[in-house]
Amino acid sequence: MTLNGHSLIAGKTTVGTTGNTYGINPATNQQLEPAYSLISDEQLKTATDAADDAFESFSSLAPEQHARFLEVIADNIDAIGDELIERASTETGLGTERLRGERTRTTGQLRLFADVVRQGDFRGVRIDPAQADRKPLPRADIRQRQIPLGPVAVFGASNFPLAFSVAGGDTASAFAAGCPVIVKAHDAHPGTAELVGQAIVKAVTDLGLHPGVFSLVYGSGASIGQELVADPAIKAVGFTGSRAGGTALMRTAAARPEPIPVYAEMSSINPVYVFPGALGGDVEALAHQYIASVTGSSGQLCTSPGLVFVPVGEAGDRFTAAVTDAVTALSGQTMLSGGIASAWEHGYNTLEAVADVDLIGRGKSGPTENSPAPAVFEADLDVFISNRVLHEEIFGAASLVVRYKAAEDLVEATRLLDGQLTASLHVTEDDYAVASPLIPALERKVGRIIVNGWPTGVEVGNAMVHGGPYPATSDSKTTSVGTLAIYRFLRPVAYQNFPEQLRPAPLQDANPWNVNRLVDGNPQRHR
Amino acid sequence: MTLNGHSLIAGKTTVGTTGNTYGINPATNQQLEPAYSLISDEQLKTATDAADDAFESFSSLAPEQHARFLEVIADNIDAIGDELIERASTETGLGTERLRGERTRTTGQLRLFADVVRQGDFRGVRIDPAQADRKPLPRADIRQRQIPLGPVAVFGASNFPLAFSVAGGDTASAFAAGCPVIVKAHDAHPGTAELVGQAIVKAVTDLGLHPGVFSLVYGSGASIGQELVADPAIKAVGFTGSRAGGTALMRTAAARPEPIPVYAEMSSINPVYVFPGALGGDVEALAHQYIASVTGSSGQLCTSPGLVFVPVGEAGDRFTAAVTDAVTALSGQTMLSGGIASAWEHGYNTLEAVADVDLIGRGKSGPTENSPAPAVFEADLDVFISNRVLHEEIFGAASLVVRYKAAEDLVEATRLLDGQLTASLHVTEDDYAVASPLIPALERKVGRIIVNGWPTGVEVGNAMVHGGPYPATSDSKTTSVGTLAIYRFLRPVAYQNFPEQLRPAPLQDANPWNVNRLVDGNPQRHR
Repeated sequence: MTLNGHSLIAGKTTVGTTGNTYGINPATNQQLEPAYSLISDEQLKTATDAADDAFESFSSLAPEQHARFLEVIADNIDAIGDELIERASTETGLGTERLRGERTRTTGQLRLFADVVRQGDFRGVRIDPAQADRKPLPRADIRQRQIPLGPVAVFGASNFPLAFSVAGGDTASAFAAGCPVIVKAHDAHPGTAELVGQAIVKAVTDLGLHPGVFSLVYGSGASIGQELVADPAIKAVGFTGSRAGGTALMRTAAARPEPIPVYAEMSSINPVYVFPGALGGDVEALAHQYIASVTGSSGQLCTSPGLVFVPVGEAGDRFTAAVTDAVTALSGQTMLSGGIASAWEHGYNTLEAVADVDLIGRGKSGPTENSPAPAVFEADLDVFISNRVLHEEIFGAASLVVRYKAAEDLVEATRLLDGQLTASLHVTEDDYAVASPLIPALERKVGRIIVNGWPTGVEVGNAMVHGGPYPATSDSKTTSVGTLAIYRFLRPVAYQNFPEQLRPAPLQDANPWNVNRLVDGNPQRHR
Repeated sequence: MTLNGHSLIAGKTTVGTTGNTYGINPATNQQLEPAYSLISDEQLKTATDAADDAFESFSSLAPEQHARFLEVIADNIDAIGDELIERASTETGLGTERLRGERTRTTGQLRLFADVVRQGDFRGVRIDPAQADRKPLPRADIRQRQIPLGPVAVFGASNFPLAFSVAGGDTASAFAAGCPVIVKAHDAHPGTAELVGQAIVKAVTDLGLHPGVFSLVYGSGASIGQELVADPAIKAVGFTGSRAGGTALMRTAAARPEPIPVYAEMSSINPVYVFPGALGGDVEALAHQYIASVTGSSGQLCTSPGLVFVPVGEAGDRFTAAVTDAVTALSGQTMLSGGIASAWEHGYNTLEAVADVDLIGRGKSGPTENSPAPAVFEADLDVFISNRVLHEEIFGAASLVVRYKAAEDLVEATRLLDGQLTASLHVTEDDYAVASPLIPALERKVGRIIVNGWPTGVEVGNAMVHGGPYPATSDSKTTSVGTLAIYRFLRPVAYQNFPEQLRPAPLQDANPWNVNRLVDGNPQRHR
């Protein structure tokens, strides 16, 4: 495919009028062609107007065409082939194997949402039939369904240029809900964004949908994003990125004449709790798994474990010694951008300067630009509890081992944590009695709890929760990964005393879409 | 029961230390005994601390005890007898027949939520079983459930001293979700609040629950409410009342170190669309139904129709003439408070002063204090479109008839409306063709659409939506009436690779609570 270097607004390649930007190869700090033109606020308005125009037809698509749209996007992304992987690798420094896996995940979740659309439970149909003879008053027929919120603004993440970007989970779930989408292209992978954007535009065209269903816009830094979120046509926001970025969008959304929901996935240190019994096995293997989870993708994963609670004593000492060995043997990998590498260095320096925090292992710097050496620190539990700076995420390959004396103290430490995406417990049956009281405390702090595993590697399925209390996300009631994510973009509407001719399809007696329904409180299956 | 005039904090009668207030009989403007003592911020803290303490045990109650709690509250409210109806009538000016109906609704919705708790679908259990042989990577067992958010602050409404107050829909749905509740007593019905509060405290005691599950607090105006919403222990807010009150709480909640959701039901003018065919029948009956809906409970209902679109021409003229006759024959009823009556007069004067808005009917003032004469105004569609003041709610018995020339123009007028709780269409089959295009426009603006009926009289059931886009509510994704309301107070948590011994009950293979579950995307029924 040809990279044009321009926004794709409602199917049209749109040359921005406010300057240019370039992608950067983080391994070399070299500028990448082509230049990307940046749109004006007026040009952005053509995208939001088109999305608003597209809403009525897109939100009422019949399930089969709706599902096909998601599948055709996936097919079109696959059809780009190696060009997509190569461009993404050049723009992000991520390896091609990792990116191939990410592409599979991206197209897999589009196809999964196609299944969700065909299955239809997300339509949330509830029917309370009329009761003409009820005393003292008759009951009217009332039917409820979930409808899409309206056009959605999506802000992708730098660390998943495919799975959390232009056709990532936010876009897939918003499309599945029936919402037009406007994606603000991430500055760190403009070419990858355009390739995927072209794949979506082609799907819109192939299926004859309203072109306003999708736009991809390149604009100047934060200002175009704020403008997009403030636009009255936009009814919800999906964001993955920094806490500063997410909270800025939350403020803008809350200050609108009509406030709208922002689903921002932000920061998490993903605590891991190693219980004494778990150190009775192969501590070297455990330490290697930990370091692999910390350093995978250069530590640039939302679920990377930044914190591990380990008991004091001989077994814990063996574990930390193995950690030291494991991390020392590693070299740094290229980070996503010079800015992210600088921020990592800043976090590293901050942690190193804290009294009573020791550097227990450091690898070597990598051969490219922006590939700092991974690092592991150690501190005692009371130091961790009393020093909030140790609770901050360092985005990249760094982690902190916190040594505890009594497992009972972990409940109190957990209460002091910020909200998190995940927590992980390493236990044997001997630990269950002391680990059990920790679970209710963790439920109040995290979106996912893992036993005898590591938080990285987020499964895309029906049961996944990739979310959690603030500041892990802006809205703990949701997930940005898995089929439940569709509910972020839906709202209920009730239809009272409607004649069959005026009822929307899923509410009709004839049930032409064969959706499951709750009738008088009882589930009725139709598929 | 004895009215003590004090807050009920975690089961203890707590004498407030910051002054007193009194209920007022709005029919006479006379002060009512006893005095109600107002608590300090420190006293409030004892309530929020107790709620936080109560969360762990209350949120994990087994279904049968949990459901019994809701039923015993209902039984205890019934057991208060006439004293509750009489006190509520004296404090609010609402008639005893209306209040008996409201009590039935209140206890009915508590019992309905008991059924919801026993049925268990709100637990949202999803299970994706392990796939050990999956390539390239095995899949871990992942299970999801919904857990309660944490302690909830509830602010009741003046216009429903039972159904939207201490044991109203917000409290019932929060309790059903497993959240402890702190209610800020409404100034306009302190005695009614205390009677119901005592009924809840007795249920907490009877069932041996943690006393922090419920507190009822009396405090000084807005400040105690802001303090409550700002408290870190509070994780969600339910509010029914004015837009000014609701948006103030939204701002406080958004500015917290950890922002929390606010479910505020605020203002709505509930447009009614009368199509030409509907005027081919008994227009006098239609006009009387309209005026009955406008003036019932002195017009102090969230769903009172403040706006009716009626065609120009002879049939529309007959309708408005019948409206004039109907409203002129009525007398004012006592409003909820002197402040509300003053606000109504202000709204009336504002509308009367608008050029090209005509007063077409006014009843007589009632015999008591604060019982202004109901009023109906008329304006042309272009006047309505160009003048935003005609879009504002006047809380009380006032309504505006807007005359339109072409039904096609109603779509554009609807696009200009604020978000609403309801819209109602009066149609015959002849009108379906012209009414159909209005429905998608209405779906984007309202929570409930009614055909050939009136918006007042909100059914409590599985399919009801009492919600809608801002400013009707703060969160269009929810309802404050009906069983769906429980989802406001829940969030998902995933459990990955948990051994059976550590799984919460609804996720266990043994499924001891017999909940329905989604297994690998397929619904499995167990009840």
